[in-house]
Amino acid sequence: MFLSRALALLALFSLGNSERLVRFLATDGKEYYGDAILPSGTVDAAKSTSAKVVVGDILGDFKVTNQVKKIKKLLAPLPSERVRTVRMVGLNYVAHINETNSTIPQWPILFYKPWTSLNTPSDPIPVSPGYQNQTNFTSTMDYETELVVVIKKKAFNITDEEALDHVLGFTVGHDVSHRGWQIDRGGLPQPQFSMGKGADGWAPWGPAIVTTDIVPDPQVLNIWTKVNGVTMQNDTTANMIFGVAHLISFFSMGITLLPGDVIFTGTPKGVNLGKENPQWLTDGDVIEVGLENVGTCTNMLQYVN
Amino acid sequence: MFLSRALALLALFSLGNSERLVRFLATDGKEYYGDAILPSGTVDAAKSTSAKVVVGDILGDFKVTNQVKKIKKLLAPLPSERVRTVRMVGLNYVAHINETNSTIPQWPILFYKPWTSLNTPSDPIPVSPGYQNQTNFTSTMDYETELVVVIKKKAFNITDEEALDHVLGFTVGHDVSHRGWQIDRGGLPQPQFSMGKGADGWAPWGPAIVTTDIVPDPQVLNIWTKVNGVTMQNDTTANMIFGVAHLISFFSMGITLLPGDVIFTGTPKGVNLGKENPQWLTDGDVIEVGLENVGTCTNMLQYVN
Repeated sequence: MFLSRALALLALFSLGNSERLVRFLATDGKEYYGDAILPSGTVDAAKSTSAKVVVGDILGDFKVTNQVKKIKKLLAPLPSERVRTVRMVGLNYVAHINETNSTIPQWPILFYKPWTSLNTPSDPIPVSPGYQNQTNFTSTMDYETELVVVIKKKAFNITDEEALDHVLGFTVGHDVSHRGWQIDRGGLPQPQFSMGKGADGWAPWGPAIVTTDIVPDPQVLNIWTKVNGVTMQNDTTANMIFGVAHLISFFSMGITLLPGDVIFTGTPKGVNLGKENPQWLTDGDVIEVGLENVGTCTNMLQYVN
Repeated sequence: MFLSRALALLALFSLGNSERLVRFLATDGKEYYGDAILPSGTVDAAKSTSAKVVVGDILGDFKVTNQVKKIKKLLAPLPSERVRTVRMVGLNYVAHINETNSTIPQWPILFYKPWTSLNTPSDPIPVSPGYQNQTNFTSTMDYETELVVVIKKKAFNITDEEALDHVLGFTVGHDVSHRGWQIDRGGLPQPQFSMGKGADGWAPWGPAIVTTDIVPDPQVLNIWTKVNGVTMQNDTTANMIFGVAHLISFFSMGITLLPGDVIFTGTPKGVNLGKENPQWLTDGDVIEVGLENVGTCTNMLQYVN
């Protein structure tokens, strides 16, 4: 009798170390964290229609229950308010550096997006008038697909070897960029990328935080972008100059990284910037950003007033 | 009888629109928000030894009571956790642009510090080994004193004319900078300033948020820096290229500014960067940053392991 109860408890709570962690609005109208139940033939939680409810704190101790809820809508893996800082890496793939006529950096290039730029894996990416076409100013909207790291444990002055122990998992993100504001109007000769990348909703991410035991090595994953169904970027995270572990240790130099912080690790080749005939994104374009064994975000660019 | 009670209530609660808002640890061991009581002959809340307790939400509705508490230690005007985003402006004073061999920007230059860089008006500024002198790498630590704006009301796509209505008040801040990491190692030819400015504690601010009715015009204030008592910067906010109102409206382009967000508005001339014989800050140096009618922060640079 005692044994059967103990077994029932074990069945109710798994060990919580091999998940595709999603946050979702369920058909019962409530929000949950969950471990996505994958339809057969895919590992993309964006295709999931149900999930096992996760209880506890996904940035601390949590457990996957056997309670299954139907997904009405996937939200971002964490509420934006719990992502304290959004770190971004520039120029981290050699072929991308070449296409943008840049030089290979000796140290990782860090910039930030405000947390207000975070978006769900499916909602529109709003483009305000200041970023739309104007007289003598082209709306140079561009896509950038990136592997995203989610920190689970405080990190300060840590080494490369310690870095992955501080990671909850990986997901995919979209560093939406307006090249005119990022570069030409960023303040030459030392442009800061902030204005061209920080608008509300310009950082879709998700669909799931895939934990490190499912993806033990983040440097072997195919990464791609499709615009209106056409492949525009198609590369592998093996081509990163600075790998995930080094980025984390480097950014922890005198700086405390906190649970919930995310790092977008740079985009591979294939962006419009540097193309002879760029096809800048415009109102209604649908952009899919994808990462192998992790999933996809699919968001539509939407002009707003 | 009724009248006397009404008058007593009126006496208890002032209208809450003319304050030097501080946050402090009191001698009773508790934390409070307060309206600093100034000693005679100064408007610098850093010199205050007591304050009237403020109740309510200083980013919403608050009231100054007649309850006076003794100040044991001034904290930052807001807990770092309530400052959601720290915006920084680069190259916003002409003479500073000239001394750094830069060019006058056509649009404001935006970058960010992480909220973890915020510091109190009096605590040490920690310098980790990665920012200290190394073989073939000089610790080029520098000061930058700046007027800081505190947002009280959500702003999105607003105009210059509307901007100051979204401001709670002004304070002074220190944009601690390591020039080597900011520029040389920031990733030429397009260095991002982030690594050289974002370490823990590298943004002291305070001592008080001085509300807009005390400082209705932020563009007429003397601003200065003293290092170990010697004046290093001494200028006026009248020399800003982009004034406070325009910075706010510009940064709200497609971007929601939230209550508690702060904007450091750039530093005037007089920094070490660009000097023929720079005297880089080092362990033990004491830096006072000051703003007329607002106050001072005084922090010591401290090497840590």
